[in-house]
Amino acid sequence: MSEPLAPGSVIGILGGGQLGRMLSVAASRLGYICHIYEPSAAAPAGHVAEKLYTAPYEDEAALRAFAGGVDVITYEFENVPTSALDLLESLKPIRPNRRALAISQDRITEKTFLNGLGLTTAPWAEVNSEADLRAAVEKIGLPAILKTTRLGYDGKGQARLNTPDDIAAAWVAMAGAPAVLEGFVAFEREVSIIGGRGADGSVAAYDPGENVHREGILRTTTVPAKLSPAQRSDAVLLAAKILNALEYIGVMGVELFVTRAGLVVNEIAPRVHNSGHWTQAGCTVDQFEQHIRAVAGLPLGDGGRYADVVMENLIGEDVEQVPAILKERAAQLHLYGKGAWRPGRKMGHVNRIVKG
Amino acid sequence: MSEPLAPGSVIGILGGGQLGRMLSVAASRLGYICHIYEPSAAAPAGHVAEKLYTAPYEDEAALRAFAGGVDVITYEFENVPTSALDLLESLKPIRPNRRALAISQDRITEKTFLNGLGLTTAPWAEVNSEADLRAAVEKIGLPAILKTTRLGYDGKGQARLNTPDDIAAAWVAMAGAPAVLEGFVAFEREVSIIGGRGADGSVAAYDPGENVHREGILRTTTVPAKLSPAQRSDAVLLAAKILNALEYIGVMGVELFVTRAGLVVNEIAPRVHNSGHWTQAGCTVDQFEQHIRAVAGLPLGDGGRYADVVMENLIGEDVEQVPAILKERAAQLHLYGKGAWRPGRKMGHVNRIVKG
Repeated sequence: MSEPLAPGSVIGILGGGQLGRMLSVAASRLGYICHIYEPSAAAPAGHVAEKLYTAPYEDEAALRAFAGGVDVITYEFENVPTSALDLLESLKPIRPNRRALAISQDRITEKTFLNGLGLTTAPWAEVNSEADLRAAVEKIGLPAILKTTRLGYDGKGQARLNTPDDIAAAWVAMAGAPAVLEGFVAFEREVSIIGGRGADGSVAAYDPGENVHREGILRTTTVPAKLSPAQRSDAVLLAAKILNALEYIGVMGVELFVTRAGLVVNEIAPRVHNSGHWTQAGCTVDQFEQHIRAVAGLPLGDGGRYADVVMENLIGEDVEQVPAILKERAAQLHLYGKGAWRPGRKMGHVNRIVKG
Repeated sequence: MSEPLAPGSVIGILGGGQLGRMLSVAASRLGYICHIYEPSAAAPAGHVAEKLYTAPYEDEAALRAFAGGVDVITYEFENVPTSALDLLESLKPIRPNRRALAISQDRITEKTFLNGLGLTTAPWAEVNSEADLRAAVEKIGLPAILKTTRLGYDGKGQARLNTPDDIAAAWVAMAGAPAVLEGFVAFEREVSIIGGRGADGSVAAYDPGENVHREGILRTTTVPAKLSPAQRSDAVLLAAKILNALEYIGVMGVELFVTRAGLVVNEIAPRVHNSGHWTQAGCTVDQFEQHIRAVAGLPLGDGGRYADVVMENLIGEDVEQVPAILKERAAQLHLYGKGAWRPGRKMGHVNRIVKG
């Protein structure tokens, strides 16, 4: 792909959730058509796409049909199996590239990559046995958290260690999967930066947002974040460093801890990010259009912010607030078309313009 | 329909052009699904809708299938044949109602309705023969314009009369169709007001926009329009009067001439309107979402404007400016997915925020 994608071209999106849904809408604004590939039966993105493939990532025929109908492939979800990606990549370009995916799929690869760029992460150690874990606790200290290196591994995932007595149980909780022990970071606040890199190598970052999590789920993002000018520019430079090192094409979310000693990278997500939803209310070109622009080889849009915004996720029963939200002035509602709420399920979000 | 439409409900849209496309996107934000009915093969709205019916308005089986799959029906296009509407209305609610459609489908009915509300239109006279036309010219004076009472009648439509010598040819140009002679209005500027009325009877109007037409096609809308405070409130009151008189549910566009003697109503459109596209860049809730909110029985959104915007239509070869527009700061581009440009074809629009 050396030329920009012509209007009317088809963008394939792996994953049919709310991110795919908002990507498809953004693509339509630029005159593109989207096809969605999603293993689960319910695919909110399918409501606003020209075509929806409902098939597992192991279905080679479906993957071939999907690839055959599109001009470029992107994703809203980073845990696409390698075998599916290998096949798709042999048929059509994938943006962002495989390296970004590979790095974000494995916590150890990711931390190694970030440290290699001179960026600070939480202290960490690889853990492949209970003995490793004991050594890691010795090195990093407690409290700490043990995580499988790959996400979504059989639904198992994380175990917190407060005392050495927790070691045996934590290791059992990993069910034999490769893991990483991460030390706790004493942070002042959590922020994230949404950066994009175009096919021409240009980089544009949005103003960092300040995030509040509850029970491991993002609740609110507020812009502007409470950051000093130096912290703000550190965040932008750090995002640009990651994007350039990966020769990345698309939008990426970088979660950061703000500490007295500087910014610590928590995690990167090679896709549009929940903490960037505020850009729909505060920017001329939002993160979804920015991602599509990059993937299509168009110039990146201006990332400038023209409003102060608080984005609030509607999680589970929060969706029952919708009738009240619809009556609010200056509240921009986004529902994801997911049917009945379940605890922890992201049902929508609302962007409130607090200063226009 | 006494209850608001539940999320996940299906809205049927008659017409699959750019207005249907942007309505479908707005509906998705509120958690609804859209099905599109469009006779022509190319239907840009189908790119961002769950289902597209491609069938003529005379296809009773297709109309029944369409109605069977939706909870409420709306339209992006006012010239839907009466027979199709009769059938659809027997199956599902149509919003806005039939009366609004009937009025806007016939220039004489429309003018009679508007004058009956005490609103000023251009001077006009009914013309069903050459003799009628001579009498009408006598009464109204020249120059004047002769128009068939119904739009899109065999592609014939309008004839301008500058001198009495034009009478015979003008009547021939109507091909025997009922017509109306309209006197010219000496106007200072053209504006339009986009108003919405909810199922609860509440009314909300956007700030009037100032329109520039060329060759009968809207080129730009600028907000704010150059209007005095009195003219501005006259425009809002006039729109509210029309909406209330029709017990209208949805968004309507009202085109106005600004004259020394006050506002003159040029035309009403019982749907979202090209001159309201600026609301996508200048309001929390744009005209498309406002229409969907009304049709779904939700509370209307706040119509407040938080930016000065110039909307420019991209007509025909204007679309070749897209690469330059993509590089502009503060330009929000909307392409309609229509394929190759043709002279006079609306290909997209751009909203430029001139003061945020």
